[in-house]
Formats: sequence, C-alpha cells, structure tokens
Amino acid sequence: MKIKVGVSNRHVHLKQSDLDILFGGELTVKNNLTQPGQFACNETVTIKTNKSEINNVRVLGPTRNYTQVEISKTDAYKLGLNPPVRTSGDLDGSEVVTIIGPKGTIETNGCIIADRHIHVTYEDKLKYNLPDKVNIKIDGIKKGIIEVNLKPSEVAFFELHLDTDDANAFLIKNGDEVEILDM
Amino acid sequence: MKIKVGVSNRHVHLKQSDLDILFGGELTVKNNLTQPGQFACNETVTIKTNKSEINNVRVLGPTRNYTQVEISKTDAYKLGLNPPVRTSGDLDGSEVVTIIGPKGTIETNGCIIADRHIHVTYEDKLKYNLPDKVNIKIDGIKKGIIEVNLKPSEVAFFELHLDTDDANAFLIKNGDEVEILDM
Repeated sequence: MKIKVGVSNRHVHLKQSDLDILFGGELTVKNNLTQPGQFACNETVTIKTNKSEINNVRVLGPTRNYTQVEISKTDAYKLGLNPPVRTSGDLDGSEVVTIIGPKGTIETNGCIIADRHIHVTYEDKLKYNLPDKVNIKIDGIKKGIIEVNLKPSEVAFFELHLDTDDANAFLIKNGDEVEILDM
Repeated sequence: MKIKVGVSNRHVHLKQSDLDILFGGELTVKNNLTQPGQFACNETVTIKTNKSEINNVRVLGPTRNYTQVEISKTDAYKLGLNPPVRTSGDLDGSEVVTIIGPKGTIETNGCIIADRHIHVTYEDKLKYNLPDKVNIKIDGIKKGIIEVNLKPSEVAFFELHLDTDDANAFLIKNGDEVEILDM
C-alpha cells in the first residue's frame, strides 16, 4: 500500500494569547496545507535560545489551545536544546525557547521534535485494517525501513509526515510516495 | 552482531596542491580519528556557493590524491547543491564548490554526500561472513532499519559511518552501538 509523504520543516503553532503578543493581530493565509483546515501563514518568527537562533520560522494556522515549536534534531543541536520526541499537543518535558515576533517576545515551553506520524481517518484505518504502528519501506540510494505511528482523526488527508532529518536521511522530497509494509 | 557508530559531520579532504593554496603549509593534528592514520586537523575552511556558505568546516588529514567535500543533504539544501551519494574517492558527477582558506581560495568539484558505510578489514569481513551490503537495526524512539555498504580495507577500525542526517533522523550519537541483522 502506497502513501504520500509530507515533509515538515521547523514550524510554530500559536495559541491566541501568544499570537496577540507576537503579532498583535490575526494570522493570514499564505497557502493551504494538505490536512483539511490547516494552513501556512505569512507570519514568521525567530526562535532563540542562549546558544543560537533560527530566523524565518513559519507559523502554521489556525491557532490552537497551546503554543508548540516543532524542530528537527539538527535544529536542536544548533539551538543547544534536547527536546523530546512527542505527538503534537503532548508537551510533557518539552524544551523552553524564546519566540520573537514583530510586535513582541514570549518565553514558552512547547519545543518538541514531532514524531513520525500518519494522518488517517478513523474510517480508513478500519477499512484498510491498519494497526497503531506501521513499518514504512523507503527505496532509493539510501534505503531503509522506519517505524511510524498512526494518528487517526475524524477528518484527515492520508499522508505520512516526516521532519527534515528523516526526509534528508532518506533523500525524500515532499510529495514522494513510499510503501506501507504488510504487518 | 553489534557495531559502533561514528557520526561524520561535514568535512573536507585536500590534495597537497589545494592545501598549498588554501593554507600555504602542512596540516596540523587536532585529534586522531578511529580509522588508523586518519586525523581531524586544526585547519578549517569555508564552503561557499552562489546561494550560501558554511563556515568552520573541518579539514581531515592526511592529504589525499583528490580534494573532496563531504556534506549532508541538509547542508546541500542550504548551499543550493544536489550532490550525488558516493563512496569516498568516486567523484563522478560531484558538485562544484568554492573552498576558502586563510591563504587562498579554490573552486573545485568533489562535493558529495558520503554513502553510509562500514569500515572493516578484509580479514574480519571473511571471518564474520559479512556480505557487501548489510541491514542495520536501530532501536530507540525513532527506530528503523537501514541498508549499508561494507568498505573493506587492509587496515580498518570496525565501525559504521553515518552522516549527521542519518544520525539525527534516528537520534544516534557518536559511539552508540547498533545491530547488524542476520542476512
């Protein structure tokens, strides 16, 4: 069974009160993402730590109930952080960073490395008899198999989300197709 | 069967004539590497392209018969390059970069992404009945299996060399142990 890959570069989700401080206004849509209702914003921020900083980090919308900064392990080394690998919204043990926007600055926890995950509807998960974890086979010059968690929801576009470290290790690009192995 | 991992950050090998231009002198040893006779130098260079540059790129010694720049896919995106995945010394189709040293600048081909490889003596390869490619199992929070080529030589320290993209994708550090799967 084939599945499309969406490669997630570092990005930020904001709660409304943090958006107010950083931008003093609403998020504006740059382009829609494949997951229904999700969009990349024109707004970007700087992520700063004692060690370093990364500019032009994209904000994704809409606002959420929590502020979350998703980075790669490569970014984490640059910033001098050791964030846990977490599912979106599970911010237990997450790292603290400073987020700088055009109107203000916040210091917040919520910095994680996102786990590899597959967006799928509850309906499709049942229909295709998919377990909670699957093995994904990646072909090419740098080939291998990675274990990935399913993240079922009511509404979803069936897609494997990897961060830039995973994508670059396997030379995968956004929109490539990989294979779910039989369990 | 277990094997130690050596994580290779971006680095440069130089031929003598390029070393002369860049540094106007000999390489000096910062520290020895695990592979016999190989060492990290005190010398560093800047790698530059039309798009960007990366500073403080370590030179590894001793000099070779060719100049070679080994970067990760993450570095390649930053520099706007599309280097091939190659075994050291196979520079067919390699990318061209500018190397800047304290005494001079060169423009050279030789920029590659190093393939994942295992250093092993011919003797040990026979002794352990290892094929030319093996599957390596990596445990942890981000687990998986990667295919790796063996690189046998007369003298070698038995070790799996990965670049920073592979290491960061699987959350592996220098000196970690991983497992060679039965073929």
